[in-house]
This record gives sequence, structure tokens and C-alpha cells, in this order.
Amino acid sequence: MNILKEFAIKPNLKNDNLTEKITSYDENGNETILPVVKEVALTIFLNKEEIVTVMTLGDMPELLALGYLLNQNMIKKNDEISSIDYDDELKVVIVRTSKITKFETKLKKKIRTSGCAVGTIYGDLMEDFNAINLNKNAKLKTSWLYQLSKKINTCPSLYLKAGALHGCVLCKEDVPLAYVEDVGRHNAVDKIAGWMMLNKIMPDDKIFYTTGRLTSEMVIKTVIMGIPILVSRSGFTESGVTLAKEADLTLVGRAKGKRMIIAHGKERIIFDVDVKNLNLHDTKSAQQKILE
Amino acid sequence: MNILKEFAIKPNLKNDNLTEKITSYDENGNETILPVVKEVALTIFLNKEEIVTVMTLGDMPELLALGYLLNQNMIKKNDEISSIDYDDELKVVIVRTSKITKFETKLKKKIRTSGCAVGTIYGDLMEDFNAINLNKNAKLKTSWLYQLSKKINTCPSLYLKAGALHGCVLCKEDVPLAYVEDVGRHNAVDKIAGWMMLNKIMPDDKIFYTTGRLTSEMVIKTVIMGIPILVSRSGFTESGVTLAKEADLTLVGRAKGKRMIIAHGKERIIFDVDVKNLNLHDTKSAQQKILE
Repeated sequence: MNILKEFAIKPNLKNDNLTEKITSYDENGNETILPVVKEVALTIFLNKEEIVTVMTLGDMPELLALGYLLNQNMIKKNDEISSIDYDDELKVVIVRTSKITKFETKLKKKIRTSGCAVGTIYGDLMEDFNAINLNKNAKLKTSWLYQLSKKINTCPSLYLKAGALHGCVLCKEDVPLAYVEDVGRHNAVDKIAGWMMLNKIMPDDKIFYTTGRLTSEMVIKTVIMGIPILVSRSGFTESGVTLAKEADLTLVGRAKGKRMIIAHGKERIIFDVDVKNLNLHDTKSAQQKILE
Repeated sequence: MNILKEFAIKPNLKNDNLTEKITSYDENGNETILPVVKEVALTIFLNKEEIVTVMTLGDMPELLALGYLLNQNMIKKNDEISSIDYDDELKVVIVRTSKITKFETKLKKKIRTSGCAVGTIYGDLMEDFNAINLNKNAKLKTSWLYQLSKKINTCPSLYLKAGALHGCVLCKEDVPLAYVEDVGRHNAVDKIAGWMMLNKIMPDDKIFYTTGRLTSEMVIKTVIMGIPILVSRSGFTESGVTLAKEADLTLVGRAKGKRMIIAHGKERIIFDVDVKNLNLHDTKSAQQKILE
């Protein structure tokens, strides 16, 4: 099976568990029925250790758990996963590895000596961050980006139905491969990371598209995932830009309509569109409409 | 001094430490200079306990620290604050209370018995949440809301200058009293909470306006602050709505242009605007422009 096809995963509008209809009122005081997204507390275990409870949309709990552990550097890409079990009633997901992880060994040692240890992993994470060499030969044609925006913005999604969600899309050239959503933008990234690990997707030639702002955490996660190009409809923070420079990540923000801002990594961009004559009539963002 | 005046605090565009100019490129490959917001790691202490490190815009560290501790239920509104010290070089802020807090006593006990304790405070927080009675007689006229939107959206802000920020505004009737911004929307709420505590602002007749989504955490913080009405330009999550119902909080979302959705607490709304004949020509959001 070729997993690298257009929208191999995408928002599942048939899953009625993800939204609920509420009775509300509009500006005239008239009753109106509104679909809203759910937010559930999901607890993630790594083997016997309880790691974290995250607030999430609730779909793809296995991918979220795996990706979270990976992006927090608690498991490594080449750790062998023996099982991922999800209990829908307890809202608990347990990721089991064949061997005890380095993180668990550290955690046990740390708890014995001085209490809480989760804060200590950040240093290790940044060590890995600094060691990563992103693919210098990866490319992003501006024509791909316009195509991606069009495909993503017109793909039926829970966001278009109910709002209040962030989306992340793993792309190759002008093809969106995996489109996930979540109430937390970091959860959406983690789901993508989990999907890539399970399906052994190589990051070197991929483009990561997100609806969220390009902050330090967003840049760190993309680099840890090994993806050389990060694109967002939203803006930048200074530390997001600084970290992108350190890692030589191509960082494109404010990608809306005809416009985009390349904050770092222009060398990977191929400007193959005559923007002046670009007709974006049919790419007008459906998201934009729902926000108005 | 009357602290309850229009924009008693508002974004300080003269503070050059909050943004930085970066060299970037547009969709045609042309160089463009872009202001971006900074994001700094601020560590908060309560007396001798290191509580948390948050990523923040970096302004108003004292208000942020105080509000964080308050909204996390680590200090109470009537705890006496003896000092708040901020070290700009170390990026550390220390909130000191006259007496040791209940939270510290619990923390010490908990660490002795089973390691990390910060997770245990959530139960206490929800106990307080359930005990709060929000003012049933507070009102929100729809005419106030249109006025507030206009004043807030046209107020010069770092968001309009550099993007990538959330805003929170404490309001009374049609007057925005305190307008703060941050890279984290929860930080912005906490700054408001800190300002209210320091200035002994009563919450009962206030309206809380935010640019962020109305999630469970946002609703919990507003209720803990004792404010009966929460408004946002953005949408809802189901658990945000459910918690608003439990606390009888008036929850208004998607407040943009002429539109708004009242998800709970319609009793506090006075529909005093003939929406059909409303002319919003000059309230067109400046934010909207920058996003386009």
C-alpha cells in the first residue's frame, strides 16, 4: 500500500463523537443550533510511567501519544514500540517499548535524588535539536505552496464545521499527505509525528504546514521531526525565527492569499510564480469565510 | 487616582525590548524588514519554591507572576503580598507572601510522600470553581459590545505592529479598562488577574474580552477571577460551554462585525441594537486588515 497519497489521513467528519450540538443565541437573540468541538483529558503512559494528561480533540489517541513521547524526546525514532493500547472509557493510552527507555532510567534516578524530573528533559531535547542537520537540498516552489493552501483550505474539516481547532498538514511537493486537527496546536503536530513514526515516513523531502503561530516550540518540534520546511498562515515570534536560523530551517509565515513572508532559509525556495498575474479567485480560503 | 478609566493600561508601543526587526523576503523574493515579537522564558517563584517557567512576551512580569499564582490557586485573593521582585537579567520574578501559603504547606507534604505535586492542585482548583457564585445581575448590552470591539480593534497594539499575539481586555460597560497582550493567551489572562488583585478591582460588574478561543481553561480562569461575562472573537469548545453552564457564566463567542453567538447566560444580555440598521463601516477590524 502506498501511504504517500493525497490526504492519506484527513479530518473524519463522520465521527460524531468529536462534536456536539449546542443551543445558542445570535446577536438578535434568536435561537441557533451550533456544532462545537469536544475537548477531552487524555492521559499518556510510557510503559509503567504516567507522563502527562493533555486536553485534546480526542481522535487518534495512539498517534498523539506516540508523537508526544517522540517530540518530548522520551522515546527515540529507533526505539522499538511493542504496543500502543487505548482505553476509550478511561481515556488512557499506554505506549510500550520492547526495552526500557533511556528516559525512564533517567526519571527513576532523578526521582530518587530530587523529586520531579520532567523539567530536566528540556536540556536533552535542545542537545538533540543542535545535533540535527536538516536536508539542505529540500525545495519549496511557491507554486506548490499556492496549491497546498487551496487544497487544504477547501478540504472538508471539523474546523470548517465547528471552528476552534488548529490544523497541521504533512506535505510533499504540492500534495497534502496527512491532515490532522486538534484543540491544541501542539497536539496536532504530535499526531503527525506519531503517524510518521508508525509509517516510517522520511522527513527529508517534506513540508510541514500549520495554521498556528511560528513560536519556539513549533520550530523545535519541526526540527526534532527532521522536516526542513515549516509553513504557516500565522505570524512569527522572534525566538521562533532565531531557532529556525540556528537549525537552518526554512520558515515561511503569513502565507495567506498571494502573500507570504520567508523569515529564514530562502535558499530552499523556488519563486516560480508570477504573483502579479496570479488569479486566486477560487482559492479564497473557506476558513476565512467561516471566520467572518 | 481613579484606576477605572479608559485604557488605564494598554500595549506600550514605546517599549523597544518587546519586538525585533528581522530581515525577511516576500512572495516575490524581495527583501522586507519585519517586526516580530520576542518570547522570553520567565521563571516564577512563590517565596522559596520555584513554581514554573513560562514563555512570555516579557512585559509586566510582576503582574504575570501574581496572576499566574492566583489563577493556579497557589495564592488566594486575600493572601497578603509582601513583595514582588523582578530580576531583568535572570528573568526571574519572586512573589513573597507575609505568611507561608496553604499551597506551599501542601507541596512540602506531598513531595515528602510521593514526588511531584503540582498536578494535585487541579482538584482544589475545581473545588473553588464549583463554590463560586457569579453575579446574576451583571449585564451586557449588545451596544456595549459593538463599542468595545471598535475601541479595542482600533487601539494601537503590538499585535497590529507585529502579529502573533493574543490580547485580553478587562471592561466595564462600554469602557476597556486594561488591555494586555502576550504570546500565550493564558499569560494575558494572568496579567489581568494580577492587575485586578494589585488594584483591588471588583470583578462582579466586569466583562472579560479575549481574542483567544473559549476553551475549558479560559472559562475556569474567568470564573476563578469572579467575572460573570466572557466574550471572544473566536469560537467555543464543548467543554468550555459545559463549564460555563455549570458556573452560570455568560459566554459570548464569534463576536466579529455584526455577529455574535451566545452559548450560555442569555439572561444577562440586553439586545438594545437594531442589528439590521447597524452601520459598522468604521468598526472594520484593523486586525482583520493585518491578517489579509
